[in-house]
Amino acid sequence: MELGEIGSGEHAGAGARERANERGGARGVTRLAFTPADMEGRRWILEKMRSAGLRAWTDCAGNVFGRLEGSITASQEGPLPDPQSGPAILLGSHLDTVPEGGMFDGALGVLGALECARAIRESGARIHHPLCVVAFANEEGSRIIPGTFGSRAFSVGISESEWKRVLSALAEAGLGSPEPPEPSCRPGDYLCYLELHIEQGGVLYRSGEDVGVVQGIVWIAAFNVVFLGEANHAGTTPMDQRKDALLGASEFVLAVPEIVRRLGSGRSVGTCGRLTVSPGGRNVIPGRADVSVEVRDLDEEVVLRLVEGVKEAASQIASRRGLRSETSDVSVIPGAMMDPRIQDAIERSAKNLGLKTRRMPSGAGHDAMNLAKRVPTGMIFVPSVDGVSHSPAEYTPKESCAAGAQVLLDTVLAIDAGALKGSC
Amino acid sequence: MELGEIGSGEHAGAGARERANERGGARGVTRLAFTPADMEGRRWILEKMRSAGLRAWTDCAGNVFGRLEGSITASQEGPLPDPQSGPAILLGSHLDTVPEGGMFDGALGVLGALECARAIRESGARIHHPLCVVAFANEEGSRIIPGTFGSRAFSVGISESEWKRVLSALAEAGLGSPEPPEPSCRPGDYLCYLELHIEQGGVLYRSGEDVGVVQGIVWIAAFNVVFLGEANHAGTTPMDQRKDALLGASEFVLAVPEIVRRLGSGRSVGTCGRLTVSPGGRNVIPGRADVSVEVRDLDEEVVLRLVEGVKEAASQIASRRGLRSETSDVSVIPGAMMDPRIQDAIERSAKNLGLKTRRMPSGAGHDAMNLAKRVPTGMIFVPSVDGVSHSPAEYTPKESCAAGAQVLLDTVLAIDAGALKGSC
Repeated sequence: MELGEIGSGEHAGAGARERANERGGARGVTRLAFTPADMEGRRWILEKMRSAGLRAWTDCAGNVFGRLEGSITASQEGPLPDPQSGPAILLGSHLDTVPEGGMFDGALGVLGALECARAIRESGARIHHPLCVVAFANEEGSRIIPGTFGSRAFSVGISESEWKRVLSALAEAGLGSPEPPEPSCRPGDYLCYLELHIEQGGVLYRSGEDVGVVQGIVWIAAFNVVFLGEANHAGTTPMDQRKDALLGASEFVLAVPEIVRRLGSGRSVGTCGRLTVSPGGRNVIPGRADVSVEVRDLDEEVVLRLVEGVKEAASQIASRRGLRSETSDVSVIPGAMMDPRIQDAIERSAKNLGLKTRRMPSGAGHDAMNLAKRVPTGMIFVPSVDGVSHSPAEYTPKESCAAGAQVLLDTVLAIDAGALKGSC
Repeated sequence: MELGEIGSGEHAGAGARERANERGGARGVTRLAFTPADMEGRRWILEKMRSAGLRAWTDCAGNVFGRLEGSITASQEGPLPDPQSGPAILLGSHLDTVPEGGMFDGALGVLGALECARAIRESGARIHHPLCVVAFANEEGSRIIPGTFGSRAFSVGISESEWKRVLSALAEAGLGSPEPPEPSCRPGDYLCYLELHIEQGGVLYRSGEDVGVVQGIVWIAAFNVVFLGEANHAGTTPMDQRKDALLGASEFVLAVPEIVRRLGSGRSVGTCGRLTVSPGGRNVIPGRADVSVEVRDLDEEVVLRLVEGVKEAASQIASRRGLRSETSDVSVIPGAMMDPRIQDAIERSAKNLGLKTRRMPSGAGHDAMNLAKRVPTGMIFVPSVDGVSHSPAEYTPKESCAAGAQVLLDTVLAIDAGALKGSC
């Protein structure tokens, strides 16, 4: 069975075609979670699922599902399990983006999954399990932290306090419920979860390999540091009498990569992605500067060591400069291991198609890390040209998108045929 | 003659009483030029001028004037010059603020001038010249650069290109005209300009002196630097493959005070008051960072040397880090010398009141520097507690405000009586 064209303009546009980027295009795609642009994308995929013959719905956390029952297939041979009760093969990704992001991150996995369902339905192939396509909500966490909100709601549940914090944004989007929903990924309902995604780094692109078989996902720790000085007149305050919060924040921003090099694993990363200055007048000495920090590594211990090192640096820099510093609570997103049997199934599927593969960790967090707590989970990576992602210049050639989706389909069929036998 | 209470809550509130700060209060005063809050303050002072018996109006640049004719005084002895044609004594300051600024910067000089006019009118004192109180528009330039817009429009005129750039903001505030207006400070119309202002630095406060007799105003050069790198995913991009614009900007921010120390006069200052990061996601490597820079010194040559040094640093830092940098045009606001005869008159008035004085430069730009190009000009400083300004914590005790206004009034009377004789 072969898939149709994936990653074409029509598909990749997903509710934001008018803003869709060409490679190196100006503004990229901005579908921040639960904004009108994001909700437009969700309605778009819901319609596409229905057009493809799936039963489709949106849950109160904003996740969009499209289900194809095993019994729907045309050429059934022999008895099938009860389609309403048998465990489903779940596959998908997310549709939201970072500000001015690319058009492949997330959307490729949702559209790839939908193409698999469409191809199976249209070919009349026999499948033993229902197929469930999902577009998870707020994976990025750019607008509302922490991310992977929808997949956590689905798999492990959201705490009451987080649900309350997010409820107004959900309600504005016509979503939500008074209490956080029970996770609907119940034991026995799902056989596994599969996610196709762009690598977002440059490993596959530089090595010339076609498909990454993901071994696991890194731990992520994120927090904010505030430097507090004294706002004052930029003309009349002598240099030696200033308490300039931005000078402290700048020294801190420069310290982060040094700490990552000194205390990290060699594969660790650390980033300050946001910095805001207050009051922010050009003729006012900054009285306050807020900096975001996040560090990542496959090893939990390394991540915690980096957090301590960065916090220590903030406090030392502030005290040396006569400033105060405050550090927010650290939000830690645990990493996760991918199921070895699914890794094998992905690798076999790719090799059967003549594709070159690499087993590799994921430096980015994904919805898959939450699903891995409930069901056997696997991820397929395709190359990102120049390793660029979260940027308008993010790009994966059409052929790579199609190859990834074909590997996804073949892996679905292998699992449907028993690759996880006895596992669930 | 003695003045009433200056700097009381009612006066200092000027259209923003509900936001007015106590010392160390939370948000300070925000009346950015031509915003509704600023226009509310302008209407408020217009009414106060009329209540005080002045003929008051607003010009198309947003300056508010209130005029008291020499002939209005009650106890006239002997002949007076034609009040419509004789040169007026101009006194005032501005009403707009920086974001979250204090309530004394600018407002004190306007309200002090109005108190002088009110006291003269109510006392029935004989004055030989019309008195003109002014509240200039957009002195700060926080919202629309460059600042001292209103006083430039009044004294030397605004270029067509600047007028066009500002016209939409003016029009929104119900101001403006198709062409920039002719400067209305024509030769022979005004005898001099006097401005009472808080020092905004800590020199008078630390020395325990009551009044600063301003000798001149520093030169100011302001421009923006943009660092351009490559936005990318914060999890998947190895540390050694990043082009992080914020790292370049941070190094630059730290370089500015070093350059000021190395190339400045010892009294020079340099400030980065704004820094914005784009795209600004916590999980995105910054692709762009915009930094504002301004440097100040009494000596034009020193200012130009600092600008060159800072520009050079930006380009070196960018190239060392594999970034690009762009520097905007430099806007230079020339300094100005205060009239020595007015300096003497201020000093005599203060000493007659038993106040301690100091001759000193102004590290801040003021409307006075534009007026100095057209008429003999003088400035009176009163202490800023702890040298704090452009901050909610800005504070000058009521007694200092009153002393400054009394010196202003006595200087007006001295000049009216001939202190500038033969000069205009």
